[in-house]
Parts: sequence; C-alpha cells; structure tokens
Amino acid sequence: MPNPKPRRANEAAPPAGFGTKILDMARQLARFSETPDGLTCTYLSPAHKAAAAQLRDWMQAAGLVAQIDAVGNVVGRYSSAAPAAKTLIVGSHYDTVVDAGQFDGRLGILTALAVAEYLSRAGRPLPFHLDVIGFAEEEGVRFAAPYLGSSAIAGRFDDAILQRSDKNGVRLESLLRGQGVDSDAIRRLARPPETLRGYLEVHIEQGPVLLDKNLPVGIVTAIAGSARFHISVRGTAGHAGTVPMPLRHDAAAAAAEIVLAVERRCGEAATLVGTVGQLAVPHGLINVIPGSCELSLDVRAGDDGVRDGAIADIVAAAQNIAAQRGVTVAISEIGSHPAVPCSDAMQAACADAIARTGVAPFHLASGAGHDAVMFGGLTEIGMLFVRCGNGGVSHSPLESVTVEDADVAARVLLDVLVNLD
Amino acid sequence: MPNPKPRRANEAAPPAGFGTKILDMARQLARFSETPDGLTCTYLSPAHKAAAAQLRDWMQAAGLVAQIDAVGNVVGRYSSAAPAAKTLIVGSHYDTVVDAGQFDGRLGILTALAVAEYLSRAGRPLPFHLDVIGFAEEEGVRFAAPYLGSSAIAGRFDDAILQRSDKNGVRLESLLRGQGVDSDAIRRLARPPETLRGYLEVHIEQGPVLLDKNLPVGIVTAIAGSARFHISVRGTAGHAGTVPMPLRHDAAAAAAEIVLAVERRCGEAATLVGTVGQLAVPHGLINVIPGSCELSLDVRAGDDGVRDGAIADIVAAAQNIAAQRGVTVAISEIGSHPAVPCSDAMQAACADAIARTGVAPFHLASGAGHDAVMFGGLTEIGMLFVRCGNGGVSHSPLESVTVEDADVAARVLLDVLVNLD
Repeated sequence: MPNPKPRRANEAAPPAGFGTKILDMARQLARFSETPDGLTCTYLSPAHKAAAAQLRDWMQAAGLVAQIDAVGNVVGRYSSAAPAAKTLIVGSHYDTVVDAGQFDGRLGILTALAVAEYLSRAGRPLPFHLDVIGFAEEEGVRFAAPYLGSSAIAGRFDDAILQRSDKNGVRLESLLRGQGVDSDAIRRLARPPETLRGYLEVHIEQGPVLLDKNLPVGIVTAIAGSARFHISVRGTAGHAGTVPMPLRHDAAAAAAEIVLAVERRCGEAATLVGTVGQLAVPHGLINVIPGSCELSLDVRAGDDGVRDGAIADIVAAAQNIAAQRGVTVAISEIGSHPAVPCSDAMQAACADAIARTGVAPFHLASGAGHDAVMFGGLTEIGMLFVRCGNGGVSHSPLESVTVEDADVAARVLLDVLVNLD
Repeated sequence: MPNPKPRRANEAAPPAGFGTKILDMARQLARFSETPDGLTCTYLSPAHKAAAAQLRDWMQAAGLVAQIDAVGNVVGRYSSAAPAAKTLIVGSHYDTVVDAGQFDGRLGILTALAVAEYLSRAGRPLPFHLDVIGFAEEEGVRFAAPYLGSSAIAGRFDDAILQRSDKNGVRLESLLRGQGVDSDAIRRLARPPETLRGYLEVHIEQGPVLLDKNLPVGIVTAIAGSARFHISVRGTAGHAGTVPMPLRHDAAAAAAEIVLAVERRCGEAATLVGTVGQLAVPHGLINVIPGSCELSLDVRAGDDGVRDGAIADIVAAAQNIAAQRGVTVAISEIGSHPAVPCSDAMQAACADAIARTGVAPFHLASGAGHDAVMFGGLTEIGMLFVRCGNGGVSHSPLESVTVEDADVAARVLLDVLVNLD
C-alpha cells in the first residue's frame, strides 16, 4: 500500500450510514419495474419514467437543483460558489436489462447522490460544479443501441438511432417527438468539453475480481477495448464409422483446438480476456464427422496493443491449425472498439482516497462498457468499481452489493471530490 | 502378398465384363426413385416395389428360381444338385437413404446376381444352395428401424417395430397387412441356422481406406461394435469482459478439451474411431462465457475390448478435465452394439481369392453396420468391401464404383463360391 496523502485538515470525517442509505434507495428504486416480479426498467417505459421522477425528487430533497432532460437523464447540480467553474460529472445509468439486479448503474447514481447530499447539508464548497447524473439509457435493451443518455450529454448522440424501432414497432424518433423532443433538443444537451472538469463513475464490478481479492473497491485503469469475430471452419463430413482417424478433416476438432488456443493466448496478459461464446456444429448428427463448425470470438483488453497482439496470434494459430488438419478457417471481424483509458490523475485521486479508508488500492481494467466510454477523449475520466457478491454475477437478480462496500465507495467518492483539486 | 492357393483345375477363367454388367444394372435400378431427380428408394414405396420386381426379373432371367417374400426381400436360388445341402446366402439391400448413391447395398446384390448367372449359364455345380438375396430394408429410413429385411431371414425380426409409423402416420403393421402379411408370415421367413452354410456380403466400403491404399477390394475383419453417448458439460456462465481467464469455468473450453481427448485416444488403435458429431453451446451469446455445452460421442472398433478400453479412458479424461476446470461432466450412454466378427475361414477364402486376382489381400474393419450383422452368431459370415471413389463419400449421389473394381469384386466372389468347400 502506498503512503496516502494526508487528508485535508478542514475535512470532517464523513458519517457512517452512507451504505445503508444507498442500499435502501436501490431497493426503493427497484419497485419501479415493467414486471410484477423482479426488475426490468427499459428506456421510457412507465416504470422508467417513474424511476426518473423518484431520482429527481431525491436529488431535490438532497439540496441539488435537479431536472429530467430531453432524453430522460436526471441531472442534479450542486453548484460551486464560482459560477464560471468547470463541471465534474459523477454519473451512471438507471435503465436496466431484463430481469436485472438492483445495482448495475444505479449504485453509481445513488452513491453520488448520497455524497452530494452530505456535501450540500454540510455546506461544503467544491471548486467545480458537481453534476450528479442518472443516465436514462445505457443497456441498449429497447432500441438495440446503448449509451443513449450519456451520448447526448457527451455530444455523441447518433441521430441514425432515431430511426430504430423497438420490438413493438415504435420508432425512437416518434417516441421522443411525442414528448416534444426533436434532434435539436438532443443536440442542445451536449456539454462543451471545455466546460468539463472531468467524469467520474462508481459502478458495480460485474465480475469476480474484487471478490477474489477480498477488496471492497478497485480503481479502473481503462474500459477495455473489444473486438468480435465470427469464425467458420470447413472440413470434410464423413461417416463416423468408416473414416479412420488419420484420414479425417473434422471441423469440430479444429474448432476445439481454436477454442483452446484462444484460452491459452488470452491467459498470457492480466487485462486480456478472450471468449468463444458461440460454438456449434450446424445440423450435427451423432454418426457424422462434422463438416463445418461455427464459432464466435470476443477479445478484450485494457490496452489496444495487447488486444491486437492477441488477435494476431489467435488468427495465426487458427490458420496453422487449419493447415495442419486440412480444413479451412474463415475469420471475419464483426466490430471493434478501442480501449478508453482512465486518466492517471483520476486513478491517483481514487488510490489516495482508498488508501485513506484503510483499504489497499487495487487497479483493474473494466471488461464491460460503461457510460464513461462516452466521455473518453472529451475530458479526463475515472471509474471506481465496487465488489460484486455471489461470485461476481450481474445482469441477474442475484447481483449483490453489501452495505459495508457501498459505504466504502461513498467515503472514497467523497474524499476524491474534496481532494481532487 | 501371401502365396495364394492354386485355383482348382476345373475352374475356367471367368469372363471379363462382370463390371460393365453390374454398373449397367445399378444404373437401371436407380431409375426407380421416389424423386424425379436423384435416387430415393425407401421401404415399400412404389419405386421400391418396382425395383424389387426388376431384381426378381433379372434373377429369373439369370436362371435362378426367384420370388419376392413377405417383407419384400427378393430371393433367387441357384440350387445345389444335393437337395439336402446347406444354403450359402450372398446378399445385401436394395432400399436406399434419401438422395442416395447407386451402389450402397445394390452393388452386393448385383455382384452376386452376375456371378450366379455365370454359374447357372456354365452349369457349374456348387456343394451348397446359393441364395442371392436383395434385402428389402436396411437403412431404417421409413420406420426408423434398420435391417427389416435381413432380420426376417435371420429370425430376428422385432415385432415391436410393427407398431411404428412412418412420417405420414402409416403403421408398418397396417402396411404389411394390406399386402396380406402378418407377423406369422414374417416369422416363417426365418432360416433355421442349421440349414445355413454361411453368409457373404459384397458392399461398397463407404469410406476412404481402400482408395487411400489404392486397392480395389478389401476383406472385412469385423463389423465394428459401437457405443453412443451424450455428454453434458456444466460450467459457470459469465460476462465475457469481466471475468479474468484464471477465474473462469468455461463449459465450451472443457468440451473442446474432451473433443481433442476423444480424437487423440481413438487415434491409438487401427480399427478404433471416435467422433463428436454434435457440439453446441445452447443459446450461446458472443459476449457470455458458456455455462453449458452439449456434445455427442460415437466410438466404434472391430474389437469390443479395444472399444471399451477407449471409452473407459475417454470417460476418465473427461472427468479429469472437469475436475481441473471446476466444471461438471455428465456422460450417459444412448446405446451400444457389440462387434460382429467375420469368420477366419471366410476371411481366408476371400484373401486367397483376392490374391489369385493379383491383388494384395488387405483386411479392414467395417465401421458401418450391414445386413451381415443380423447373421452374426447364426452362421459364419464374411464381407468383401469394394473401393469407394470420390474420397470415400457414400449416402450421396457422389458415391462411385469403377467398372474395374466391380469386375474384381465379382471375380473374387466367384472364386470364393467355387473354392469355399
């Protein structure tokens, strides 16, 4: 553990009870659901609008100037004494996947809200405006397009998405126009980069690393870049009884070698992961040697060079496997996103604050995307991960955060806000 | 090549032209199809009945006493001078799979027919009755039950199959009763084992071994025993971005190791083959670590001990893989059949005859099932495989046999018949 900077003398110890308050709000917010059981809260559903109103009300009660913007973001400001000060955004999203947990996205909003309330009640001034934002849409469930809320604030909203329709045929453009919102209104939400001090996000880890390390929180180094591929293996179908093993060109056996090559190569670097999530012999029969096999590949890393090096090695390994087995392998890229690094300064501020809570600062990459991605390149970003219980499961009702961990996260966030500048 | 026994002095050299005749008959027989293009001839369809009538007519024209029996087998006898002599059956099947080749099954009938015609025309006596049989059903297409024809002759017809229905809901029992056939009539077809001299079958190899060895024919050592399994791997699903490689319990990666373990272990013995024909991550998503993977396993060998040893090793390997990866593997047997060995005497007779044609005798196991299986344990059996062109493809219009190879097969069969006793 590094030697933390001493806390500023004028900073009173924050109260206990952040964690209880955050988890209580998460429970209450989860009552707004499209389903009678469990939690589903997709973009601009009645449950989603009710959740937005609840967030706005809480923000106002906390002493923030709060409103719901054109795309549904709930924005609450704790103003700096200096009107011309820049703005630090602390946000995350309040929409959910289908049958979600209570913390994905919401934990970050509610932690920021609890901390802003403390600052407001204490009359503690900040050298920047603090905007607590509950982004309306990050999961991409309703219109198969993620980051609707944060892209608007970041000035990166893609107008083409307005022409998408949900599963009931409702176009996003029509839905927004029904609320008096057009693309100009969305464009006006964009924050000029020069007005931003930075972007911070608290988020449940959605993975098992902090649980495995027995740590309540961790510092995100980068939101991993990803690349996705489809791989088709073509061999020679044959009778399972009549073709001796040395004469086979089995597409599934070649695919199996590729799966293990992905696993082996992606185990060679810390923030690198590689996954074959789809694997199938189309129309496979128990007594036929597979003539084809289809698989997917998803590779992510906190560093684009690490990722690209792994992909190059996997492609080479696949071609080598194909050549040795007398099969063909076709690899097509479906899409890719570069890694979005968190700034050194934000990481250092988080590390110092964590150390001051008596916890060892631990750095990890985020393998999942977050609203923070939208602010990459516009302003410096930072992310704080909170331990995810139950083995790290997320996008599930089993997703869990403890009162104690939420409390640590809030105390760290408070410390960062107070000590950042 | 071993030193062949000298041919009996009274045996005239067989005529050239067997091959041309056999391939010509195969082409003619293929005109009787349920489909306007290609060849499909399933049990008791109009095309099937027409093919039976054609075979019977050819047999009668060849000098055999021929008829179509209760289940549709076409039986043509070339009688021995001694009425009490035993009977050697030389047969194969005339039904086909959907979109079949012209030779699977039929090559064996037509080769026997051509040879019987030669014997009949030459007035060449045999010490046994020779029954050339075109079995009505071996592929199991219409009623999902193979060996309908040969099981009746072997006295192994399973009455339970009478209650099965085809895809149009027609029950086999109703179909046969419409032709005046009941289960007693089927039972009467059974040959008492003590009346049989043996069973011989010529069949296209349906694999690439003879092609690879550059040999026109080969001697079958045994019809391989088989065992089939379903394997379920259960791991832990997870986010493809957030779970580091060392913390994963990936069901597909475990399955991949099992696929390669099957391939490796089944490559260790000559007549052993192992196939994972079905392989799938159910509902796999590109960004989710597979929580489950389903695969099939088909293991065959000419020797049951070899097969059982391989299965035991594969099961142990799968459990070991599961333990190392923190996943579970459930292996359930779907079915198994013991190997059916060809008799040493029949193999020796074939080898001597092959050597006398100037070809090196080569032994191989049959990985596919054949009508011969039904006669295993009842009488001594022998099988002669004929080279399969186009890489060994069968159950396909691409299935091919050359005139020259068919000629060699017929000359070998003639030699075996004349020299067996």
